[in-house]
Order: sequence, then C-alpha cells, then structure tokens
Amino acid sequence: MNDQIFETVITTCSPEGAVHVAPMGVRYVGEEVVLKPFRPSRTLDNVLATRTAVLNTITDVRVFAGCVTGRRNWSTSTVDTPDGSPAVGLACAHVHVLLRLVDVAEDPQRPTLRLARVREVQRSAFPGFNRAQAAVLEGAVLVSRLHLLPPEKIDSEMAYLQIAVDKTAGAAELEAWAWLQEAIARHRAPALGSA
Amino acid sequence: MNDQIFETVITTCSPEGAVHVAPMGVRYVGEEVVLKPFRPSRTLDNVLATRTAVLNTITDVRVFAGCVTGRRNWSTSTVDTPDGSPAVGLACAHVHVLLRLVDVAEDPQRPTLRLARVREVQRSAFPGFNRAQAAVLEGAVLVSRLHLLPPEKIDSEMAYLQIAVDKTAGAAELEAWAWLQEAIARHRAPALGSA
Repeated sequence: MNDQIFETVITTCSPEGAVHVAPMGVRYVGEEVVLKPFRPSRTLDNVLATRTAVLNTITDVRVFAGCVTGRRNWSTSTVDTPDGSPAVGLACAHVHVLLRLVDVAEDPQRPTLRLARVREVQRSAFPGFNRAQAAVLEGAVLVSRLHLLPPEKIDSEMAYLQIAVDKTAGAAELEAWAWLQEAIARHRAPALGSA
Repeated sequence: MNDQIFETVITTCSPEGAVHVAPMGVRYVGEEVVLKPFRPSRTLDNVLATRTAVLNTITDVRVFAGCVTGRRNWSTSTVDTPDGSPAVGLACAHVHVLLRLVDVAEDPQRPTLRLARVREVQRSAFPGFNRAQAAVLEGAVLVSRLHLLPPEKIDSEMAYLQIAVDKTAGAAELEAWAWLQEAIARHRAPALGSA
C-alpha cells in the first residue's frame, strides 16, 4: 500500500439530502481512493447509506481552517451521477471526483473504505504551490490537536509557520490564519466565571 | 498588487534552443503573470531574447529539491505556440501556461517582467495537498540558504519538517528529501585536504 496521503475534502449527503463537508487524508491505491474515517463519523454514515461520496481537491485553505474552527457551511454545487442520485462537491474545488463505495473493511475504531472513481471533473487549474497555504494546513492540524499539545509547542510551531504566511499569503490565507489564531486564543481564555 | 506568491517552475529556451528549467515564485495580477528574477538569470536572458516562457504548476517536488542540489535535467515536452517558435514545459507539470512578454520594468538587481497568458493546457488533475511535498519545498528553501543560516536553525527546521515527511511521503517525496539531506551533509563535510 502506498503511504502517500493527500489532504482533500470529502463531501457526502445523508439519505435525506443533508450535505456534510469533511477534510480527510486519503490514499490513492491503483484506480481506487481509500478512506479511513475515525468513528463516529458522519462521512462514514453517509457513505455506508448512499455508497456515494465526492472527493474535492482544493487550494482554498479556508475550508481546512474553517472546519477545525466551527465553520462547516461551504458553498457546494451539484455533481452529476449516472443514476441521478444526489451528490455535491465544493464550489471552490479544482477537481470533483465522484466516488462509489466498493468495499468496507470493518474496524471498531477506523474502518477502511475502498471507493471507485466513477467520474472526474476538472473545474479549475492548479495554480502552483503557495507556502502560506501549506502553513495554514499545518496550523489547522495544530488547532485540531490543541487539547493534546503543550502551549509552548503550539507557539513555536505557529511562529515558524507565520514566516511563510507573512511572505506569501493572499487574502484567503490571511483570513484562514486569523481563524486559527482566534481559536488558539479562545482555547486559552479562562472560562467565564472562573477565577 | 496581490502579494500571494505561487511556487512554480519556469521553462524557457535560448535563441539556440537550449532549455532552461528554473523554480520561481510568481504573482498572478489580473490576467498576467509577474516574474521578478534576480540578476544574473538565464530565465531573464531567455525571456528577453525570445519573449516566451512556459509556467509549469507541479506537485513533483523532486524538481524543487533537484534544482537546489544540482539536478536540472528534467524531462520536457513541446508546447504548441501560435507562431511555431520553440517552447517546452515540464513533462511532470499539471498545467502548462504559455506566456508572452508584454512589459519589462528595468532594475539593476531584480527587473519586473509582465507576461500575458497565451494558452493554458491542463495535463493532469491536482491530487490535493500532500504535507510531505510542502515539507520538501520548505527544505529546498533552507538548502538554497545553507550559506546564510546557522546550522542549528537548519537542524531544528529539518527535524520539524521530517514529521510530515514520515507521515505522508510517497517515493518521490522520499527521494527529494534524501537529496536535501545529502546536500546539507555535503555542505558541512570538511573540504578534502583540510584539517
């Protein structure tokens, strides 16, 4: 198995049509996409119920920073499916890959889902690496682990990542970076009513 | 002017047809691409002579790591031009953007080149972020500044970047990372016959 992991966003729909947006590290194995969601997982529930998902490759890192700071309401657009069943992708995605579940390896913590690529739509060209985007992604990983990491480690890594933000960010990256900084400050603020 | 900088690779040809491959941070301003090469620059010479360049967006970070460690011989493929003049792009590029020089703002250190997008060819889909690729890119920046940075800073930043490499790299990223580590070791090795 290839260990290369790509940070993408998986969009799924519940049987009732409620959209769920989840950043997820995926593996590409042959022609298949492999997901290993941690239980409990709305993505897992939706894929098991509908056997359908859309993989989005994005460079708008506000989605990553937003999802770890409580912002999950992202614009989506319809993805055509062969049988007309509902599927949506992120409006900001460079690529939508429509996926169909082919196999589930059960696991109490982290089942493995193998999905086949049904259709791939290139929507916009990859503009190249932006170091600030990579810094925001790393910052989002840190923020998702605030309760596990010592404050000094958070501070030193955020300071290191700040350099690439200062040098190469545009408006979207600055907005995402500010969300991460706010989340760190909020995590450290004393609870209301405490000493 | 938008400050967002994208790390791309610019391929140019000399009037005699010799290909030159150069990683370069670029800005997208309106419909134009803006390059600011530091003199002396083969890319600058070639663009001034031919008024043509190809912007390549890539995720094969061996090109970035390779170019800072003496590996500049990358596979290219022909890019069609309206007037039949020679142009090539990297074989590994996701996108080739054929560029035509429209303006030069002279500067003794760093002239500003404004280029128009003539044609854009999407060759392969962006697979999503890979944290190891971003780490290799940061490592390549460090290696390009080995003569300027204290060894402790290099070591601590490479150790930090190693985490993402260990977690998410595939074969290409591991190869690129090894080139960077070799270059750091070589930089520190005592010169033959010294001591």
